[in-house]
Amino acid sequence: MDGGLVRVRMDIGYDGTDFSGWATQPGRRTVQGELEAAIATVLRRPVRLTVAGRTDAGVHATGQVAHADLPSTVDCAALGKRLLRLLSADLTVGEIRPAPPGFDARFGALRRHYVYRVADRPSTAAPLRRRDTLAWPRPLDEHAMNAAAGPLLGEHDFAAFCRRREGATTVRELQRLGWERAPDGVLACRVSADAFCHNMVRSLVGALIAVGEGRRPTAWPSGVLAAGVRSSDVVPANGLTLVGVDYPPDDELAARATRTRAVRT
Amino acid sequence: MDGGLVRVRMDIGYDGTDFSGWATQPGRRTVQGELEAAIATVLRRPVRLTVAGRTDAGVHATGQVAHADLPSTVDCAALGKRLLRLLSADLTVGEIRPAPPGFDARFGALRRHYVYRVADRPSTAAPLRRRDTLAWPRPLDEHAMNAAAGPLLGEHDFAAFCRRREGATTVRELQRLGWERAPDGVLACRVSADAFCHNMVRSLVGALIAVGEGRRPTAWPSGVLAAGVRSSDVVPANGLTLVGVDYPPDDELAARATRTRAVRT
Repeated sequence: MDGGLVRVRMDIGYDGTDFSGWATQPGRRTVQGELEAAIATVLRRPVRLTVAGRTDAGVHATGQVAHADLPSTVDCAALGKRLLRLLSADLTVGEIRPAPPGFDARFGALRRHYVYRVADRPSTAAPLRRRDTLAWPRPLDEHAMNAAAGPLLGEHDFAAFCRRREGATTVRELQRLGWERAPDGVLACRVSADAFCHNMVRSLVGALIAVGEGRRPTAWPSGVLAAGVRSSDVVPANGLTLVGVDYPPDDELAARATRTRAVRT
Repeated sequence: MDGGLVRVRMDIGYDGTDFSGWATQPGRRTVQGELEAAIATVLRRPVRLTVAGRTDAGVHATGQVAHADLPSTVDCAALGKRLLRLLSADLTVGEIRPAPPGFDARFGALRRHYVYRVADRPSTAAPLRRRDTLAWPRPLDEHAMNAAAGPLLGEHDFAAFCRRREGATTVRELQRLGWERAPDGVLACRVSADAFCHNMVRSLVGALIAVGEGRRPTAWPSGVLAAGVRSSDVVPANGLTLVGVDYPPDDELAARATRTRAVRT
């Protein structure tokens, strides 16, 4: 026996441009694959990460969270330093620390926060942010998009904005969906929910952009939601970044994970 | 006769990573070279740009300003659209418009604004901003750096912080020099002056970083300034971005350009 395992939490950031998403796939460069391999190199044993948001190919993260069960003898600070040297520049690990009892990066999360960035006009800020910003060829009306976003907030069945997975619920609580235009002219849509089903942020943003450019009326996205018929306006991955994940206070962690697991499966 | 020339102002942004700076150099990819070639392609005649800030190799811009004297028949909007299609993704042109009488992008400028970005700790925001942020291996004390910056403000001979050019003055008015730490942990130094001599921002930032990591006392940068002996702590180009240029109101433009030209030459 090597003294058992300790669960550690790690904060993760990546430029998703050159990754085939989070989840390990044979023959592909993925965030999970690179990170698990680097940790295995340091610890000389295989390791498995559980993540808060399984981002798709091309999606970025500045606030991704994962957990892993590591030998209890692990030196988190030394592991972090070794990883920073092993990982390529488009993937980094922030603080690594022992997780509080009951912590589960996936099932314990209260909510996920995403930002979708769109440049809808020529912007001199664009060249430096072209990896995480979608260039849109027509001007968008952010007030119309915000008006269309309002009725989507709250708990709904978001089947119309999800790629269906057999046996999984598509009921989610959308807590934030709003556009702001930065001083440099770039639009950012902030989207938060308890969890997201597959393609949900990119489908919601796509539906709002259809309103923003005047191709659809303001009431259209809420009509799509109510009808439950799949919306086809999915925007590309490159504008999307997972910016944060919220967890409950330490003493509520175990109860939260148990509850989430029961609902989702 | 083709009806004479009209002076146009253009706002320019670039990711400087893959450019050998602003100024045209034989056999090198430069911002001026790419932009003049693209405009010449559209207008079918050679054109010469005059710029507010002649940035060095690797330095970025979100707020660069240039002027050019073009045939008075030019359609600025059409030129802008053509340029956006011709230019590569790391170089863009914002609005192109007829300049007010007396406008000179270089000699008419009141002040230039730069930002220098430094990540002095592992940050999950780093992968997406690695092209315009310097990674620094030791923690920096922004309060010590701000204390050291104070005495440098105002009009001084900045010879100690400049790469000398024969016959050019090194007297400048430093109007802003201050560090802020963003919520993602990245440090940004905002630097503004009426004009900068060569290497000045990178030398000032280098001197402050020497204080910030505890290698030099707080009074050291102002001592270097007073002694006039060249400081060798020049930081790399990749953290530096020209973010803006200020011009006086239209009715003071001609007087400003005349005055600047007299002082600088």
